[in-house]
Amino acid sequence: MPVFDWGRSYNRDALGNDLVAAVIVTIMLIPQSLAYALLAGLPAETGIYASIAPIVLYAIFGTSRALAVGPVAVVSLMTAAAIGNLAEPGSAELLVAAVTLAFLSGVFLILLGIFRLGFLANFLSHPVIAGFITASGILIATSQLRHILGISSGGANLPELLRSLYEHLGEVNWTTFAIGASATAFLFWVRKGLKPALLAAGVKPKLAGVLAKAGPVAAVAVTIFVTWVFNLSETAGVRVVGDVPQGLPPLTMPSFSPDLWGTLIGSAVLISIIGFVESVSVAQTLAARKRQRIVPDQELIGLGAANVGAAFTGGYPVTGGFARSVVNFDAGAETPAAGAYTAVGLMLAAMLLTPLIYHLPQATLAATIIVAVLSLVDFSILKKTWVYSRADFIAVSTTIVLTLVFGVEVGVTAGVLISILIHLYKSSRPHMAVVGRVPGTEHFRNVKRHKVEIDETVLTLRVDESLYFANARYLEDSLYDMVAARPQLRHVILMCPAVNEIDMSALESLEAINERLKALGVTFNLSEVKGPVMDRLRRGDFLSHLSGKVFLSQHQAAVELNGENPQLKVSSSQPQERTSP
Amino acid sequence: MPVFDWGRSYNRDALGNDLVAAVIVTIMLIPQSLAYALLAGLPAETGIYASIAPIVLYAIFGTSRALAVGPVAVVSLMTAAAIGNLAEPGSAELLVAAVTLAFLSGVFLILLGIFRLGFLANFLSHPVIAGFITASGILIATSQLRHILGISSGGANLPELLRSLYEHLGEVNWTTFAIGASATAFLFWVRKGLKPALLAAGVKPKLAGVLAKAGPVAAVAVTIFVTWVFNLSETAGVRVVGDVPQGLPPLTMPSFSPDLWGTLIGSAVLISIIGFVESVSVAQTLAARKRQRIVPDQELIGLGAANVGAAFTGGYPVTGGFARSVVNFDAGAETPAAGAYTAVGLMLAAMLLTPLIYHLPQATLAATIIVAVLSLVDFSILKKTWVYSRADFIAVSTTIVLTLVFGVEVGVTAGVLISILIHLYKSSRPHMAVVGRVPGTEHFRNVKRHKVEIDETVLTLRVDESLYFANARYLEDSLYDMVAARPQLRHVILMCPAVNEIDMSALESLEAINERLKALGVTFNLSEVKGPVMDRLRRGDFLSHLSGKVFLSQHQAAVELNGENPQLKVSSSQPQERTSP
Repeated sequence: MPVFDWGRSYNRDALGNDLVAAVIVTIMLIPQSLAYALLAGLPAETGIYASIAPIVLYAIFGTSRALAVGPVAVVSLMTAAAIGNLAEPGSAELLVAAVTLAFLSGVFLILLGIFRLGFLANFLSHPVIAGFITASGILIATSQLRHILGISSGGANLPELLRSLYEHLGEVNWTTFAIGASATAFLFWVRKGLKPALLAAGVKPKLAGVLAKAGPVAAVAVTIFVTWVFNLSETAGVRVVGDVPQGLPPLTMPSFSPDLWGTLIGSAVLISIIGFVESVSVAQTLAARKRQRIVPDQELIGLGAANVGAAFTGGYPVTGGFARSVVNFDAGAETPAAGAYTAVGLMLAAMLLTPLIYHLPQATLAATIIVAVLSLVDFSILKKTWVYSRADFIAVSTTIVLTLVFGVEVGVTAGVLISILIHLYKSSRPHMAVVGRVPGTEHFRNVKRHKVEIDETVLTLRVDESLYFANARYLEDSLYDMVAARPQLRHVILMCPAVNEIDMSALESLEAINERLKALGVTFNLSEVKGPVMDRLRRGDFLSHLSGKVFLSQHQAAVELNGENPQLKVSSSQPQERTSP
Repeated sequence: MPVFDWGRSYNRDALGNDLVAAVIVTIMLIPQSLAYALLAGLPAETGIYASIAPIVLYAIFGTSRALAVGPVAVVSLMTAAAIGNLAEPGSAELLVAAVTLAFLSGVFLILLGIFRLGFLANFLSHPVIAGFITASGILIATSQLRHILGISSGGANLPELLRSLYEHLGEVNWTTFAIGASATAFLFWVRKGLKPALLAAGVKPKLAGVLAKAGPVAAVAVTIFVTWVFNLSETAGVRVVGDVPQGLPPLTMPSFSPDLWGTLIGSAVLISIIGFVESVSVAQTLAARKRQRIVPDQELIGLGAANVGAAFTGGYPVTGGFARSVVNFDAGAETPAAGAYTAVGLMLAAMLLTPLIYHLPQATLAATIIVAVLSLVDFSILKKTWVYSRADFIAVSTTIVLTLVFGVEVGVTAGVLISILIHLYKSSRPHMAVVGRVPGTEHFRNVKRHKVEIDETVLTLRVDESLYFANARYLEDSLYDMVAARPQLRHVILMCPAVNEIDMSALESLEAINERLKALGVTFNLSEVKGPVMDRLRRGDFLSHLSGKVFLSQHQAAVELNGENPQLKVSSSQPQERTSP
């Protein structure tokens, strides 16, 4: 268990650093946890509970030294999408659904970890993740506008959210709006302008950093105070957090109803994968800065344990959060023990501070969320992919549009499927080049890009892709077309330096090509076949039927086969830049 | 349109050959069409109707000269699975469902053809198709046992079929069984032993071939005669085909009910793809024998038109059949006109012969099917894939088991998904080799396979796979591990001769690697990057940030980077056979 690695060498220095980091993270987490619980459609205290046991369990089972586990924006939104329609807001059934979702998600993550299936998360391509996070940020920010305006609109996707906002626009509570708008403006200023202002005023950089982190707490304190003094919840109808139970997280049990499991399992899988991908990206980024390593399959177990912990302590699905982890790291956390101290801080908050937040306006929490998620919105990925690769651009733009229009679950599923389909499409029509010899060398290059010598009785085709079921027939078709266009042909050489695999379907295509060429009196040869591919070809009987030979190098093949007919012609194509093969 | 290609040069020779082929195929198709309609759970005449308009439409729009289009075994089974539960056998609703299924399948095929999406069919790997056909053959043969035994069992998969057979075993009609068993035995003998016997008796080979093809017709004629003479359908309860309407195919309309479309669309897609794959394989095999070419995207349109034709003339989904196409080809068919003459033959049969088949026992048709499909059952693919590639073995064995246990639709869907997942899994953990120079040459080979020189300050890693989202993180992880194990390292070279693509995710990983190595004081270089990949890298700003260089050849890279530190060490690994890189 990872805990033994760092536990053995734990000393007073590490303790001091971890404690400082824990205090800073605790201050930041209190408003954030309340806010994300609200975003998930759950009572505010659920957010605090979801930050205590999970953080301790991750410290024991996880491999990242700085990752801070708890509720995060995107997973909270996905939780709302998964359980929002199952029960009334605030009902006991909804809480059971939330802990069951955390339980299923945790078990799924642990199973992936045990069976070392962490690689599955790689099927979310970077652009798809970036598009999904951006679209989710927009959805989240839009969904919070209702709290800023004090209206009761709803919706699970952008068209629904906007229509509902428009329909309820007559009900705006202007006191709530004043609180929400000023809190949002203040928090944006804290994020961008407070630290420079403090530094300019002569405050030491470290303290300035801590004070800037405390901005949300200040907004919370001030709006609580104002709402309490003027009793705005009763006199002006400002919605507040209200009664929050005081005490330690409760012991809860997930449901074992097969019906509920059936309803939630798909969402649990998506939440697990999105949570894992987000968490691993953060953990890897932070580990790299200190030349540490994380172990993805062990991370799955750490996050899985955290979610199972959330399930039994009144929480909801959690993962490693970007903002809190970076704060933890910047504050100097050295070991996962910092997370455990944070948990203690949050326990104290749950026991002592909950009466104070009765008058906390929901608009303040919404402001916290909006400011946090708008930093996730980044459309530059559209421009980057447009320039670099149209296929990636299609994947990312489809993910963004589908997430906005149909919600998070459709969006991310479509993103994965599109990434895979585009990859398969590309590898199903591989780049192929007819090659000839660069005069005076042993190099063979594309006749379309270089001035090369070719022999009309020999066709050398280089395939720039592994041969497998998706492109086997394409190879057959292309080769037959080329052979049909060259009546003088006597030898075909398939040049394989880029062929990393030949599967059974491709082997059958090669056998078909061999038979068909044999019937035409043309030999079929291979050159530059790689070791692992050659090992595999030797297992079947293809090589014993091959009408030609397997040559170690293309040069040897050309020497031997051209030998019968030494008239070489220089390809008529234009000489081009020599940088491409 | 393909019809103009061969239509212009049509002459008397071709006419003669086509007419002979048409007569032979018509004789063969009459019992086969009736039998497959029964397999699909439809009235016997549907099979004849499905062979007339489709065959003519394919002759106009298709590109194969010898393909014979009509009902086939696997598609008939899939039709039964798709519509069997929607309505009572023999009801008008069932016929509407059948023509709607043909219509949807036809429209889907035409759309695939118009958008040039024929490549999608390539995602069915050869072993998966072979496994699917074998399992379908077993399912079909088992499903026909009830007709041989004269019982009313049912089921859509092997466990259901066997349980139902067992439960109804007490009801066996022994007269039916006598007819069915002797017809089966006779047809097996016709298939294996008749032609050699005729040849031995001095019959000319061509006539012997035709007589052997007429075996099923003989079985049909004899059993009709026996059943008629003894009136077995009334005296012994032998089930017969019964009343079949006499006349031309009726004009039918597919349903445009959205509900029915929703129910059938998934099945229509599967039927289209399976039908297309089967048809294209047959057409390619036959075209190759005469050095002709087929155009897969035009084939989609030809098959689509055939299915739409079936939809409007009382048929059900059709495709190019293996047995009838081979017979057509062997009988000397030169052009698709042979198909049109076959259609005329079948129209005559529909008008004149239907009264004769009133007394045809269903057991005879079941015998025809069993003998035909058992020739499709071939487990050798299991042995071949076991020897050649475990991944293909897993795909094929899973397809067989799932098809048998859960039916055709689950089986083929699972087969496609498993093929794709296995491919993605393999390419997500690519083969990588640390390489060094073979002494005295400019070649660089795997240090684990060859005796090579390496420089401890330079790490050259060759990745044998395109870099894309599924393996980008794996590359990062592997490279960081290697760098962490080599404290003296100053340069990393990524050797890219097998990298056919670098997508956006992989580019971001390369950027991350570059940044991280830079922080460690190690330069990051690329060598032997291909033209198309280099073109793409130039579009972004990666190359301007690259801490090292891009070298045209690995040799140049080694000369320049080793130059700073010329102490070379010979790798300690054992020298091995030189055939693998």
